[in-house]
Amino acid sequence: MKVLSVLGSTGSIGTNTLKLVSEFPKDFRVAGLCAGKNAKLLARQTEETCPEIVSSGDEKILAELQSLLRQRGYQMAKTRFVCGIEGHIEVACHPESSIVLSAISGAAGLLPTYRALENGKSIALANKEVMVMAGELMTRIAEAKQLPILPVDSEHNAIHQCLRGGRKNEVRNLILTASGGPFRNTSRDRFASITPAEALAHPTWDMGRKITIDSATLMNKGLEVIEAARLFGFPADAISVVVHPQSVIHSMVEFLDGSVLAQLGVTDMRIPIQYALTYPERWPTPLDRLDIYKQPTLEFFEPDMEKFPCLGLAYKALAAGGTAPAVLNAANEIAVEAFLDEKLAFAEIPRIIEAALDAHIPEAADDLDVILRADAWARKEAARGTRRIKPCL
Amino acid sequence: MKVLSVLGSTGSIGTNTLKLVSEFPKDFRVAGLCAGKNAKLLARQTEETCPEIVSSGDEKILAELQSLLRQRGYQMAKTRFVCGIEGHIEVACHPESSIVLSAISGAAGLLPTYRALENGKSIALANKEVMVMAGELMTRIAEAKQLPILPVDSEHNAIHQCLRGGRKNEVRNLILTASGGPFRNTSRDRFASITPAEALAHPTWDMGRKITIDSATLMNKGLEVIEAARLFGFPADAISVVVHPQSVIHSMVEFLDGSVLAQLGVTDMRIPIQYALTYPERWPTPLDRLDIYKQPTLEFFEPDMEKFPCLGLAYKALAAGGTAPAVLNAANEIAVEAFLDEKLAFAEIPRIIEAALDAHIPEAADDLDVILRADAWARKEAARGTRRIKPCL
Repeated sequence: MKVLSVLGSTGSIGTNTLKLVSEFPKDFRVAGLCAGKNAKLLARQTEETCPEIVSSGDEKILAELQSLLRQRGYQMAKTRFVCGIEGHIEVACHPESSIVLSAISGAAGLLPTYRALENGKSIALANKEVMVMAGELMTRIAEAKQLPILPVDSEHNAIHQCLRGGRKNEVRNLILTASGGPFRNTSRDRFASITPAEALAHPTWDMGRKITIDSATLMNKGLEVIEAARLFGFPADAISVVVHPQSVIHSMVEFLDGSVLAQLGVTDMRIPIQYALTYPERWPTPLDRLDIYKQPTLEFFEPDMEKFPCLGLAYKALAAGGTAPAVLNAANEIAVEAFLDEKLAFAEIPRIIEAALDAHIPEAADDLDVILRADAWARKEAARGTRRIKPCL
Repeated sequence: MKVLSVLGSTGSIGTNTLKLVSEFPKDFRVAGLCAGKNAKLLARQTEETCPEIVSSGDEKILAELQSLLRQRGYQMAKTRFVCGIEGHIEVACHPESSIVLSAISGAAGLLPTYRALENGKSIALANKEVMVMAGELMTRIAEAKQLPILPVDSEHNAIHQCLRGGRKNEVRNLILTASGGPFRNTSRDRFASITPAEALAHPTWDMGRKITIDSATLMNKGLEVIEAARLFGFPADAISVVVHPQSVIHSMVEFLDGSVLAQLGVTDMRIPIQYALTYPERWPTPLDRLDIYKQPTLEFFEPDMEKFPCLGLAYKALAAGGTAPAVLNAANEIAVEAFLDEKLAFAEIPRIIEAALDAHIPEAADDLDVILRADAWARKEAARGTRRIKPCL
């Protein structure tokens, strides 16, 4: 029996995780849940999983959650209710859990995930910001404690699988596939007038709003390049990106003997989630099989770095190292928020990030306080930048 | 230093192996060569590799080989010269060699490869007939002696690589890719008038004549299905074939958790040969890398079993088991030979094979004599069949 805490249980990864867990009632148990704002869904999840501990974003959501559960006749004594970042950390470190599924999106996921690892939990990681901001620190702790950090992101999950085909020093290149986002074929001069609604229409995966915008700017792929560098320990020049609009191949690994291994699958997050939760075993999936006879033709393109400067900025931050990736990530979060609030044009997102990166002098990212300070600084710097620029919408 | 005997050194796999060996002069040494008819090339290979032992097809070729070498001033005392099947077996079992690359095409490769394994050699296997005819026997000896049989065939090599991604009991399906051959889009009523010249024009790989015809009838894929069943220990219903005309993906493995691993590479036999010779290590290839940005669009189709009955016959022989695959293989060799000699129409090839299979009562294939008797019987039966049918060319 594997016992889990699910951080970010009401998001798309969280709900898929709980769906999966319910398929294997004898193999998985949920000891902790935490979510930000969706009290209604969190109440239903609490009823269904009866966890030892539940945390919500703040006191107000917590009160709403508790009132909902009381109305439904939930035995409140079965569960301890907490809230806020301290509450999330309690869920992450709950003594019953051995695996923490980390799916709180953005920088907010860092602290609970970090504390979980420190407390000896295996990590199934869906939050890429954790590795972008504090990847070196995380892998150092994981190695010292011999704990796995198993990626849930379909690309890194694919790479994790392909890496089983050889030793690390036999790898020449990690190849991350990218759907290319909704603006792959949009001409560059249309970029200034792209609206949030247009950018939220992602062709393949059903994801949250922030990550969908990142997918449209290719910053998502940029963050994944950094995440891959940290997770697997490869330098920037051993990681490349290929645009593969069909998203059938989830990523690849090129070995130095000329063989390339690729992982394919249906586009359902439950496949990488299950892999991350059951590794080193593979369990039968309750999902439909990939029907190889019914696949579309698969295409591969070089990414357009001029049209999508965010990807280049991520490589730049990775090369700069230290706190630079944390700054990239924080500035991006602020810029995307401003874009979603219609306070910033789509084409201005990379400029805000670049300005923050250019103004930053990277420090070694071997201390959480240093990283969080850089994050806070970058948010302020980026917010200042977005206020300075008039939206062109 | 790995010391090799190369069986079938003048064929396309043999020459590619020697090309590869010459790229790693400090890591590989050739102790034995054997080839059938091409005295000229065998003489050059003998000069280049200075092996302890060389075998040719018969006394006449041997005399020609020796005379060529003397003319060129080769120090004849450095090498022992032998010939015929006994000579080939001596090369296969030479005490200096630890790896035998088995690339004599057709049933003729069986005995030397079998003896090599019995004598404790690791096998790098390019001859698929060995596993089709005597696969159960070969794997039993390999397991008992803890010797690897490493496939050189690009498809099985790909599967070997993909299988590293999980345990055997976690595999749901092996997926062999097939180029589909030159007649994939040819209408069925044209099949009766297909000439050897047309059938020899294979779109992707540069191969010998017999295997090229097998590729046109899809019998090559059928033999590979049987080979995969024997090499990896899976039943017929866990092995499928997908037509993938671009031959970029060399084969795949579907795991029961929904993940599919695939191996991709440039279409150069030196990649799987090198993998087989260096396993479990991967060495840097001297070849060009696969440029993922320059790949064609990849397509996948279900094979047309009605247009290509040979594929179904192979599944039928595999299901029948015992000596049936040996009969399938022998009858196919005779039918293909008759077709190449313009004594049999293309569309009659499967009929000859089917007639032999139908007339055969399979015996357990756990003894080489039984297998060779079935092989001899099937050749006679098929030859009788081809004489009975008037060519329609």
